[in-house]
Amino acid sequence: MSDGPTVIIDISVSLDGYVAGPNQSLDDPLGVRGEELHEWVIATAAWRESHGREGGTEGVDSDLIAARVERTGVTVMGRNMFSAGRDGQGWEDDPRAEGWWGEDPPYHHPVFVLTHHEREPLEMKGGTTFIFVTAGIESALEQARDAAGDKDVLIAGGANVCNQYLGAGLVDEVHLHVAPILLGGGARLLDDLGANPPGLEPISVAESPKATHLAYRVKRQVR
Amino acid sequence: MSDGPTVIIDISVSLDGYVAGPNQSLDDPLGVRGEELHEWVIATAAWRESHGREGGTEGVDSDLIAARVERTGVTVMGRNMFSAGRDGQGWEDDPRAEGWWGEDPPYHHPVFVLTHHEREPLEMKGGTTFIFVTAGIESALEQARDAAGDKDVLIAGGANVCNQYLGAGLVDEVHLHVAPILLGGGARLLDDLGANPPGLEPISVAESPKATHLAYRVKRQVR
Repeated sequence: MSDGPTVIIDISVSLDGYVAGPNQSLDDPLGVRGEELHEWVIATAAWRESHGREGGTEGVDSDLIAARVERTGVTVMGRNMFSAGRDGQGWEDDPRAEGWWGEDPPYHHPVFVLTHHEREPLEMKGGTTFIFVTAGIESALEQARDAAGDKDVLIAGGANVCNQYLGAGLVDEVHLHVAPILLGGGARLLDDLGANPPGLEPISVAESPKATHLAYRVKRQVR
Repeated sequence: MSDGPTVIIDISVSLDGYVAGPNQSLDDPLGVRGEELHEWVIATAAWRESHGREGGTEGVDSDLIAARVERTGVTVMGRNMFSAGRDGQGWEDDPRAEGWWGEDPPYHHPVFVLTHHEREPLEMKGGTTFIFVTAGIESALEQARDAAGDKDVLIAGGANVCNQYLGAGLVDEVHLHVAPILLGGGARLLDDLGANPPGLEPISVAESPKATHLAYRVKRQVR
């Protein structure tokens, strides 16, 4: 994994390990209280600037957001994160469907969507193109690495997709932004990693009143 | 909860949220790789000193151990933590049984053991007395608070006991020592907290190469 782009999981998580709250639905894709996971993000100047707004907080939270945006060349996500859970209802493969990210998604680079529905790429405003991959996580990662240039590949979610990549030994770094909340249920990160999960090596710890930022390097596995 | 002793969960946990690894047994009470959770502890000068040994590392890890020992007046634990899983086999209520902590347990204060087996208190060497409580977690906590004087009550584990106290809104602070490991299974902390888990407020973050120390105040719940 040392050659080519760095493959990164970078995600906000509750102290009890959830990246979305209970009862996720079409109307509530982050589940009950799931939006609180991202309060540290939307407060930052970096996030506000990337969304055309002024103001926001400077500091460690904002610096981390800015660095991640700068370093990410390609994003990989699951079908639910693209379509807000409509997969399997004949919606995602509707060529008119544009996911739930709006006409100008906040990625501005290629986004590989893991799905069971073959579909032509979907080019959005602002440089985001959704590319649908039906051949599995390894194929999606291979395509993502080829498209990333000298930047990083971000495994964006959801929990299940992150867990699959991590359990398969395909991730180089895990960056967790721990929000000071307990959700009590929902989509659990770092779950179902198999009987022999990879080793970790701490990279850094940073804190703000809104989140604690923990970064780890994933040790190369001998298989 | 603001009057009297502070009730604290203070426990080592893997990044994936386990306080013991998979396949816990009589011979392996911490489960597969569970001992790695405590490597940061046994490396410290404070821990070594409290166990009659010389050497060990100074610094944040050692300071935290020393402060916790100093502040803890009473410990509460589950039956498995006392007896290494022998409860229900007619062992724990055997008046000859001394748990698995040896004849001079490392507590040196009253330890309340949650159990279904009535039993006389068990006085050990070095000031540790195991007191067996069959009337449930609230009764055990009440007795523990009465015995704590001006020190803290430590909810020591296992995961199930910590989760019950936290879910019931009976904990004032949660101190997690996150070891840089993934266990992939075992006894999960911060689980089964119910539909309305308590709020948190960050107290402090500290780090060493061996663990990241996260402390939170539990917000008083309106019930």
